[in-house]
Amino acid sequence: MTESYSVAILGATGAVGAELLQLLEERNFPISNLKLLASPRSAGQVLEFKGECFTLEAVSEKSFQGMDIVLASAGGSTSKAWAEAIVQSGAVMIDNSSAFRMDPSVPLVVPEVNPDAVEDHRGIIANPNCTTILMSLAVWPLHQACPIQRLLAATYQSASGAGARAMEELKQQTQAILNQQDPPAEIFPYPLAFNLFPHNSPLNAQGYCEEEMKMIHETRKIFGAPDLRVSATCVRVPVLRAHSEAINLEFAEPLSADRARQILAEAPGVKLLEDWDKNYFPMPMDASGKDEVLVGRIRQDLSHPCGLELWICGDQIRKGAALNAIQIAELLVNRNLVQSAMAVSS
Amino acid sequence: MTESYSVAILGATGAVGAELLQLLEERNFPISNLKLLASPRSAGQVLEFKGECFTLEAVSEKSFQGMDIVLASAGGSTSKAWAEAIVQSGAVMIDNSSAFRMDPSVPLVVPEVNPDAVEDHRGIIANPNCTTILMSLAVWPLHQACPIQRLLAATYQSASGAGARAMEELKQQTQAILNQQDPPAEIFPYPLAFNLFPHNSPLNAQGYCEEEMKMIHETRKIFGAPDLRVSATCVRVPVLRAHSEAINLEFAEPLSADRARQILAEAPGVKLLEDWDKNYFPMPMDASGKDEVLVGRIRQDLSHPCGLELWICGDQIRKGAALNAIQIAELLVNRNLVQSAMAVSS
Repeated sequence: MTESYSVAILGATGAVGAELLQLLEERNFPISNLKLLASPRSAGQVLEFKGECFTLEAVSEKSFQGMDIVLASAGGSTSKAWAEAIVQSGAVMIDNSSAFRMDPSVPLVVPEVNPDAVEDHRGIIANPNCTTILMSLAVWPLHQACPIQRLLAATYQSASGAGARAMEELKQQTQAILNQQDPPAEIFPYPLAFNLFPHNSPLNAQGYCEEEMKMIHETRKIFGAPDLRVSATCVRVPVLRAHSEAINLEFAEPLSADRARQILAEAPGVKLLEDWDKNYFPMPMDASGKDEVLVGRIRQDLSHPCGLELWICGDQIRKGAALNAIQIAELLVNRNLVQSAMAVSS
Repeated sequence: MTESYSVAILGATGAVGAELLQLLEERNFPISNLKLLASPRSAGQVLEFKGECFTLEAVSEKSFQGMDIVLASAGGSTSKAWAEAIVQSGAVMIDNSSAFRMDPSVPLVVPEVNPDAVEDHRGIIANPNCTTILMSLAVWPLHQACPIQRLLAATYQSASGAGARAMEELKQQTQAILNQQDPPAEIFPYPLAFNLFPHNSPLNAQGYCEEEMKMIHETRKIFGAPDLRVSATCVRVPVLRAHSEAINLEFAEPLSADRARQILAEAPGVKLLEDWDKNYFPMPMDASGKDEVLVGRIRQDLSHPCGLELWICGDQIRKGAALNAIQIAELLVNRNLVQSAMAVSS
């Protein structure tokens, strides 16, 4: 009989939190005890799980006592604030925020890419950024076949990356514009409806935004390739919940499009979707709600003898966030690693 | 006193045709006689120009008699069907379709880039593809300062590129989805509202679509750089009328972002738009209806010692089509080249 676990979701009311709850149910994760934690503002709300009602509790130091796994998706400052309490309580924190991703003592894990990294965890495992997770699924198998030297990405990121309220705002803005009214813009800095804009995360001195730097640093860490040359242009587009990415790869040697296609047809977490006769390739509407990253339009790059062009779409909330976190939890269960370093050493 | 000209618009009812008419008025193009030509289906419709009403005539061989300039924007097959009659009549055809763009005897012109190419015209001058025109304005001045060796583009193309009916369809689809109804898809092969898809022009054996091949071949021809290495990924996004492009450039030597910024600040047809404090860069909503191509987010490419990243937005109907055609007409007027080779030789 499988062991079962006490699981807490920190930030259960957000877009990712709701998806975490749904995936725990869908995938029948072995739960003995479920706790839904939120800010005092959201405490008292009731959410359903497997037909039972759960009341959201305001998070406190005591919340984590007796928990085995804490799935955190309430933003970086909340994760930082509670990480110590979680680890001290003996639970493992799977953190969806960027707070610990680049911490050398914290594994940054995409289960299809670097599952062994979980072995070294010391109580916290970081879930990578959505664009990085989605890209890594398509790029890693190719990198295994032939080392990639340079990776360029241009993204087409949906509203969901900015949360459930952002998705709602996109719909409201769109209706306002169709009614020839001014679009409300509270979550996004600029109207997104019938518009798009470079990703509005903070810019560094080199002009790269945080989202782009995540793609650079996180990809290197996940791939164990600190010298991989990466650049990205991240753009928010008026799509609800799936991200798309145009990816240009330069390999150490030529890798044919056909070989890449064979590799990706068998790659875990990837679904090859190419109908050249119908000009049908991955689209956000097909990726939404799917577990797999859809990959297509694999082309030899006409501008580089060792280049390939790829086109991918993946559900930002699902594999880009919640599903990857649940898969990390499953990996911990399967490898019997559901205990923090604190618990081990005590 | 300036000479004035007999001008015909072939395809006056389309999105580009309407813009041509508006620009001729706005820019006070020296017109002595205006003729609006269309398919028999549209003949009889009435359009206004400078407060006067003009009835659309069904196009025939005789339509071009006495015309000096014919602005053609009714698609490739219409342009091919009437080109000989236009040139034979002594008029110069400025063709917005792709029919003659790669014909070695036809100049392909962006007035800010290769104005001298008009000198050799033999009755037909081709207006480049929208994505190519917009990109060339931002890239050419940099190529002059330091030769570009490789150019990669990922596009974010608006509905207007598929015409006025496509723009209307995007709005109808969007309203349908907001009303939780099935979106109509007659013009586009797939729903565009809250979705996006790789550009649906025909694919070649290498997996590139026609739109991408236009960016490759036309850029080389306009730049007079047949060996320029170019690749592109063209994507249709749910935006009404301005295209955006993420452009990655590899130069023969390092060109700093600051130097590129200086160059682009003075480049004709370009407006530099960068507010790094406000994270404000070119957006379709700002580019729509503008003559200039907006350029911003100029960054040193962290993945290449001689690389630069650029972000541009430009009005697809205006500079991407109608304005460039009118500028070609103005160039012909200024250089006294408003006569076809036929007229010259007769």
